[in-house]
Amino acid sequence: MGFRPLHDRVLVRRVEAEEKTAGGIIIPDTAKEKPQEGEVVSVGTGIKSEEGKVTPLDVKAGDKILFGKWSGTEVKVDGEDLLIMKESDILGIVG
Amino acid sequence: MGFRPLHDRVLVRRVEAEEKTAGGIIIPDTAKEKPQEGEVVSVGTGIKSEEGKVTPLDVKAGDKILFGKWSGTEVKVDGEDLLIMKESDILGIVG
Amino acid sequence: MGFRPLHDRVLVRRVEAEEKTAGGIIIPDTAKEKPQEGEVVSVGTGIKSEEGKVTPLDVKAGDKILFGKWSGTEVKVDGEDLLIMKESDILGIVG
Amino acid sequence: MGFRPLHDRVLVRRVEAEEKTAGGIIIPDTAKEKPQEGEVVSVGTGIKSEEGKVTPLDVKAGDKILFGKWSGTEVKVDGEDLLIMKESDILGIVG
Amino acid sequence: MGFRPLHDRVLVRRVEAEEKTAGGIIIPDTAKEKPQEGEVVSVGTGIKSEEGKVTPLDVKAGDKILFGKWSGTEVKVDGEDLLIMKESDILGIVG
Amino acid sequence: MGFRPLHDRVLVRRVEAEEKTAGGIIIPDTAKEKPQEGEVVSVGTGIKSEEGKVTPLDVKAGDKILFGKWSGTEVKVDGEDLLIMKESDILGIVG
Amino acid sequence: MGFRPLHDRVLVRRVEAEEKTAGGIIIPDTAKEKPQEGEVVSVGTGIKSEEGKVTPLDVKAGDKILFGKWSGTEVKVDGEDLLIMKESDILGIVG
Repeated sequence: MGFRPLHDRVLVRRVEAEEKTAGGIIIPDTAKEKPQEGEVVSVGTGIKSEEGKVTPLDVKAGDKILFGKWSGTEVKVDGEDLLIMKESDILGIVG
Repeated sequence: MGFRPLHDRVLVRRVEAEEKTAGGIIIPDTAKEKPQEGEVVSVGTGIKSEEGKVTPLDVKAGDKILFGKWSGTEVKVDGEDLLIMKESDILGIVG
Repeated sequence: MGFRPLHDRVLVRRVEAEEKTAGGIIIPDTAKEKPQEGEVVSVGTGIKSEEGKVTPLDVKAGDKILFGKWSGTEVKVDGEDLLIMKESDILGIVG
Repeated sequence: MGFRPLHDRVLVRRVEAEEKTAGGIIIPDTAKEKPQEGEVVSVGTGIKSEEGKVTPLDVKAGDKILFGKWSGTEVKVDGEDLLIMKESDILGIVG
Repeated sequence: MGFRPLHDRVLVRRVEAEEKTAGGIIIPDTAKEKPQEGEVVSVGTGIKSEEGKVTPLDVKAGDKILFGKWSGTEVKVDGEDLLIMKESDILGIVG
Repeated sequence: MGFRPLHDRVLVRRVEAEEKTAGGIIIPDTAKEKPQEGEVVSVGTGIKSEEGKVTPLDVKAGDKILFGKWSGTEVKVDGEDLLIMKESDILGIVG
Repeated sequence: MGFRPLHDRVLVRRVEAEEKTAGGIIIPDTAKEKPQEGEVVSVGTGIKSEEGKVTPLDVKAGDKILFGKWSGTEVKVDGEDLLIMKESDILGIVG
């Protein structure tokens, strides 16, 4: 089915960064306020200026990214739970 | 009768994405926070800049789209319940 | 007496879209959240940019329109109750 | 003494539009939410853009106008109670 | 000592407009919501655009002005209590 | 150690303007709402426009200034308690 | 692993500025409202204008900086707790 985000939106697959406490207890990321890790699945065509000029985004499919804890909207695409967010929600590119 | 949305507005027909739980109970989409699926019926002429320049929209009639749960205003056109929303409410194009 | 709206304002006459329930009870539109129907009576000269450039509006006298439930301010012109609203309150043109 | 409004401000004299109910009771306008009628006394030089360009206003002294119920600030000029408001508070020109 | 307001700020000396009720009781202006009268003492160099262009102000030292009741910040300059406000707080020039 | 403020920020040393009541009681300035006096220690390079153009500030090191009571953030530079604020917090230059 | 901040974001390592009271009690910085000290680890490519023009940042890797107490979001990069913030959160450069 696929999904093309619009304009400056980005489709992201969450990467579960599990962390273990000293005692080996897995702290699900959701319990902490830390930014989330993810991988870019697809990107929009870019930001449109008021005069219609399109500026491509700085992230691309395959990039590993960090994004704010509460960023994005959950969507189901081809049966997979993914996230749609704006490029401005992305803090940076890992690696 | 027909209806031409103004400027950057889009007329959308909801597509009911019914999901069944394991036990076969249908969860009406409205119960969940997930974005809604729809089909574009007609689009406005585009976004007008302060100087009057018109930039066409990136969605067109027939596109399958995902949009935010609370986006749009309900309208009845030719007896059918449809939605009017802004292009900026649309997350992306399916397919 | 007449009335010329200023800039991007539009003078509108309400069109009462009565709907009957199955049992024939008339549901006055006001009871529901649906957008209202109206007819454009007169329009302002257009939107003025910061530099003074005027861009004419996309609606004109005689257009049938849909507008948001709570849009506009009531005014009495030549004894008739009309509405003054901004073009940006208009969802689209019917027909 | 006189008074020159600054920039996009307008000096307005209220015109009391008294309305009588069927029984002849005068409903002072203030009791209703309807826009107010007034006459333009004097206008500012115009709107100044960020670059300093001045665009004259579209209303002039003598125009009969309708303005929002709560618009403007009361001032006393040469002993007369008048209103100072912005041009953007004016809904349109009567006549 | 003197004081040069910055950019679009204006230094103002209050002019106490005392009004007497029929019985001769002086109503200090502060008790009413009416705009205040003042005299311009000195003005800033003007408004700076984002590109650095400076546009001189439309009021000058010596102008009698009306300004909003709650406008400005009190300052003591050379022992005298004055007000510093923005040009946009000034309603107009008297005379 | 020194400290270079960024962009349109200004480093300021407070000047304690003590005022004595008739009875000689010193009213520390902090108790009153009056603007504060200070001296500019160092200034940023200037305001950057969206296109990257830098416009120098209008205040410079050594200027005596008045600024709003609650403006600025306290910082310790080389062991001295100073204030960092934006140029837009400065009301004007004394002298 | 490394981490490239996006656009006008900056990756910062906290520098713990411990201060001792007279009695030698260490006041952890967090207890006070003072700005925090840090060192820039890496910077984004710069601020993008609406037309797509990129303006490099004024801080670079290695700069010692002061930033607002509540600025930034905590992230773990290569096992180290760092902060991601916008350049506009940085008050200035130390030294």
